[in-house]
Formats: sequence, C-alpha cells, structure tokens
Amino acid sequence: MNIEQITLVRTPQGAPIEDDFSVGGASLSAPIKGQALVRVLALSLDPYLRSAMSSRHLSAAIAPGDVVSGEGLVQVLVSQHPRMAPGTIWVAACGWRSHALLDATTIEQARPVGPEVQPPTLALGVLGMPGLTAWAGFKKLADARPGDTLVVSAASGPVGATVGQLARLAGCRVIGIAGGSEKCAWATGEAGFDACIDYHVHDLRVELRRHAPSGVDIYFDNVGGNVLMAVCEQLAVGARVVLCGLIAQYNGSAPVPLNPALIIRARATMRGLVVYDHWTQLAEMQVEIGAYVRAGQLRWREDISHGLSETPAAFARLMVGRNKGKALVLL
Amino acid sequence: MNIEQITLVRTPQGAPIEDDFSVGGASLSAPIKGQALVRVLALSLDPYLRSAMSSRHLSAAIAPGDVVSGEGLVQVLVSQHPRMAPGTIWVAACGWRSHALLDATTIEQARPVGPEVQPPTLALGVLGMPGLTAWAGFKKLADARPGDTLVVSAASGPVGATVGQLARLAGCRVIGIAGGSEKCAWATGEAGFDACIDYHVHDLRVELRRHAPSGVDIYFDNVGGNVLMAVCEQLAVGARVVLCGLIAQYNGSAPVPLNPALIIRARATMRGLVVYDHWTQLAEMQVEIGAYVRAGQLRWREDISHGLSETPAAFARLMVGRNKGKALVLL
Repeated sequence: MNIEQITLVRTPQGAPIEDDFSVGGASLSAPIKGQALVRVLALSLDPYLRSAMSSRHLSAAIAPGDVVSGEGLVQVLVSQHPRMAPGTIWVAACGWRSHALLDATTIEQARPVGPEVQPPTLALGVLGMPGLTAWAGFKKLADARPGDTLVVSAASGPVGATVGQLARLAGCRVIGIAGGSEKCAWATGEAGFDACIDYHVHDLRVELRRHAPSGVDIYFDNVGGNVLMAVCEQLAVGARVVLCGLIAQYNGSAPVPLNPALIIRARATMRGLVVYDHWTQLAEMQVEIGAYVRAGQLRWREDISHGLSETPAAFARLMVGRNKGKALVLL
Repeated sequence: MNIEQITLVRTPQGAPIEDDFSVGGASLSAPIKGQALVRVLALSLDPYLRSAMSSRHLSAAIAPGDVVSGEGLVQVLVSQHPRMAPGTIWVAACGWRSHALLDATTIEQARPVGPEVQPPTLALGVLGMPGLTAWAGFKKLADARPGDTLVVSAASGPVGATVGQLARLAGCRVIGIAGGSEKCAWATGEAGFDACIDYHVHDLRVELRRHAPSGVDIYFDNVGGNVLMAVCEQLAVGARVVLCGLIAQYNGSAPVPLNPALIIRARATMRGLVVYDHWTQLAEMQVEIGAYVRAGQLRWREDISHGLSETPAAFARLMVGRNKGKALVLL
C-alpha cells in the first residue's frame, strides 16, 4: 500500500526548521509472519528526538536519509503477530509515517492502550513516557518530604506539569519555571502551582530568591543550561537535583558550565534520570496517575497539530519552546 | 610575650607564592578569664585555605592583613579556661603563629589529642580532618559494594590515600590518580592500590578505559576540573560521585564545564561532601581508622617542613601538588 512518511534531509543546525525534513511517499508490502501493519492515529513529538538527530542520545541515532523515528498511537490493520489483534490500539515505535509495518521486536516493545484511557492520546502523555518520567523522577529520585520547596522547569510541559502536580499532592510548595506569561498562568491557574517564573521577562535568580528565600529543596531539571546553573545557586543545604532533560543542549549548543562548588556548598545530591530504566513500573504509574486524572486532580494539556505534513513545523515549534503542552500530531 | 606570625600580604593570583605572605613579630598579652595561651607544635596546611583567601570557602575569608587562619597541634602553656589543662595537647584553630591566645569559642571547638595518638601529628591527618573527610565520604556517600571499581584523585594525599585504603578494605578495586610517578609508586606500593594513573605523563581518558573497562562505579573527587570531567565520561551505569574538593579551582581558575549529560547517561548520583557536617562522628572514625593504623593496615605519609618561616613555601608547594602526603610544618 502507498503511505506517507517524513525523512530527515540533513542534520539540523541548532534548532530544527521545516526544511530539515521532507514529506514523501513510500510503498509498504503486506505483513509477513511476525509483522503487523498499523495505521498511525497520532504521533508523539519529544525533545529527545532532536538529540538523536545529533547522535547524542541513548536511543538510536537518526541520520540524514532516515525516516524520523519516534513513538505514536497506532491501530492494527493486519497482523501476523499473535500479540497484536486487528483493531487494537497501541503505543509503538512507528516513526513519522501514516502507516507502518512493525517488526517482531517493535511489536514486543509496544504497549497496549485499553479503552479506559480517555482520550487515548493520554497514552503518549501523562499516562505514557512523559508521565512515567515525571512519576519515576519524583517518586524515586527526589526524596520529597511535605513542606519541601520544589522547583521544576518546563513547567507547563507534560513532564514538568506532572512533576509539579505530584509534588503538590505530596505536600510540597511548587515553583515552576516557564517561558512566557501564558504558560505561567496555566501552571498557577490550572495546574495549581504556588508560583511560576517567566524567565523570558524576569531575572530568574532574583525571582528564585524571592520565591524560595530559604532555598530550593528539590530541583527537577528538564532543560539544563543557564536555568540549571541559576537554580543550583539557590539550593538549600541537603537539596536534591534530578537531571531529567537538557533541551537547552539538544539543539547543539555547548554545555553550560555547571560549577561543582554549588553542589558541594549545598551538600546536594544530583541524580541522572533515564526513563527507560523504569518501564517495569509503567502499570503502577498508570494506576496512580490514572486515578488522579479521573478525579480531576491532575491537569494536562495537548498541543495538537493535524496532518502528517504538519509534523516538521510542530517539531520545530517544540524545540524552541513554542508548544503549549504535550506536542502531538493527529493523522 | 613576643611571638612570630605569618600575615597574608595580598590575595594570591592563581597559585600562591611565598611573596604573598610575610613573617613578622607580634606581642601576646597574658590570657584573661576564658582564654588560653598555647604553643604551636605543628601547623596543618590544607588546600581549603587557598579558597578562603579568595573568599570562596564555607570557612571565614582570609583577607590581606589577616594572620593566616588554619588548624594546628598546640600545647597549653597557661590556661584560664576550665577545658584546657596546662601541658595538654589539642588540635585548635591557632592560625599561622608560633604561639596563640585562644578565645573561649576557639577553645570550645578544639579537640583533645590523647597519648594514644602516635605520632600526635596523626590528629592533623588520618585521625583528624582529612581522615574524617575520607571516612565520611566513603562510608556515608559512596554506597560502596565489594567488587566496585573506585577511582580517587589526589591519591597519595591524606584524603585520597585513606579513601583508597578504606575502599580496598571494603573489597573494592581501587584506581588512584596522582601527578608524578613517585606518588603513583607510593599509592600502589605502600597503600596497596590496584593501579594509579600518573596524569602528568599519561592520557587520563585512555588509562581510565584501560583500567576500568566496565566503567567507574565510584569516583571520589578531590580535585575538580578536567580530571572530574574525564572520570565522569567513564562512569558505569548507577555510578556514585562524591564531590569532596576542587583544588583545580582553588587557585582561582574558572570552573571547568561539567556536562550534566554525563550524569544522566550514567544514571549517576553525585553528592557534595562538607566535612564539617560530620564532626559528631569524629570519635567513631578515630576508633575505626585508629585500629587500622595500629594494625598496619592503613598507611599515610607526612610532608614535613621545619620552622614557621617555611610555612609559605610549604603552602605554595602544596597548592601546585608538589607535596608528598599530609603537609605539615613542625615548629
């Protein structure tokens, strides 16, 4: 069958632009034994893909000429694999395609999406990888206690917003960092953060001192760069720093010097988080966050584009922080 | 009485030199109530003092015109404080002086040195602050398990050598990093390290890959700078990094960028160590390390200069790594 797909034309220089990608056609053969043909319902756009385009991520590199990899919500059309029944819905590594022929390895790593997940795109958001990232980082690495002051960057994104809300539910005081007044208003208004600093217009160091005069007990870092450095200057003694994402570096800029003296001065514990280590707890996370979602205690938002051909533009917006919530493309 | 003392003339530019200090005379009055007059037997030279000379340390800054602060082994001559009996020996914040008039606060923070400490200068070394630094960092922050590969920098210094030997006793494989073949030979020959990399003549990254092909489980960092960066590139998954000292920065050079991506990639836990947090466990450390010392299971060495006027030169040698073991000045 004829399908549409998106190829990386060249390695982006800095932030990706639409011309780094091309939309083209391809032809898929019928699935052989062990394979399944799926229709892509929605693509998940995630910052780590930019890192993979520079071969700097734990996941496989994305080289010029490759169809862009990445996960999506898919529905099985034809299956020659016992795990996938026709009509069922999964999260799978389908790549940026209208349809995909999944091999046995990809099928075995796919995750089923049951009818209780409403809307099903939550399986790409707070009930999927971003949710697990937030949940594992907060539950297992942050060592949070009621009354702690937690700061989280990319506060209105699917990871940051979930971290902040889990922290609020655990009795922490939560300060977000985001770029733009609209994102900050959402974080404090909808997600219930105690405060949110718009680093586009305010001096982050001044605002951190104002909102966390006794210091930051937990910093959940989704961005790296100057924001990481600025928050580390304001750590309380005994602080925990969870290093989760480095979007400030993914576009290819040099790492910002993190001065180890700040870690010593705060007797801080800094831990690196890789979500892949925590897949075995996906179901546990889904039970807990699913209950919060159903009870209306945990908010999220989706930044939805329509049509495969819109994917490069949506990804470009994501990588300069112009998305509002989990970036998705509905096909 | 007339005494000798050493004043900081100017803030050192980079590594300190003798001309940054001047030796002069002063006059001490007799102790009043709450004070004690002591004779200084030995001065402890420690890298953190350089940092204090640039006002970048947790301890009080040392400004031009000040007598240089720092601890020493002292004997009480005349006491007007109930805690200090004449003739007894203590570790106290005496400063770089031949004799000192200790005030009540300093006396209350001083630590007695009993006759079982032989030689008494061990109270400034493996049974004092360097020993407690090594012991607390290794016992409480490194989370060591038998079979772990531990790397320690400044391997022949009082902290590094003690960390390495405690790790050996705990069943770890120990790789030192030191500057110069003589220090490395001491670490492997006397202190029993499995290997020691002379970073003056070898490529540290190449040697780390050779000696730790499966990665570094624990890095105990006494130096910061490029060495910290190089070891972080070779961390095993789940590694622990103890940040203890930053001698590479103390002389005033800019912090070397520590790339947070290395911490994420290794899912590492990085912790800052401040020895002052662990004073309450000094006695526990002394019992344990004292037993190792008496049993001949823990080696150390002292780099001894003679006479107060030699102190600036000895300190300058320490800060460029030309000491061999714990730097002391005997008066």
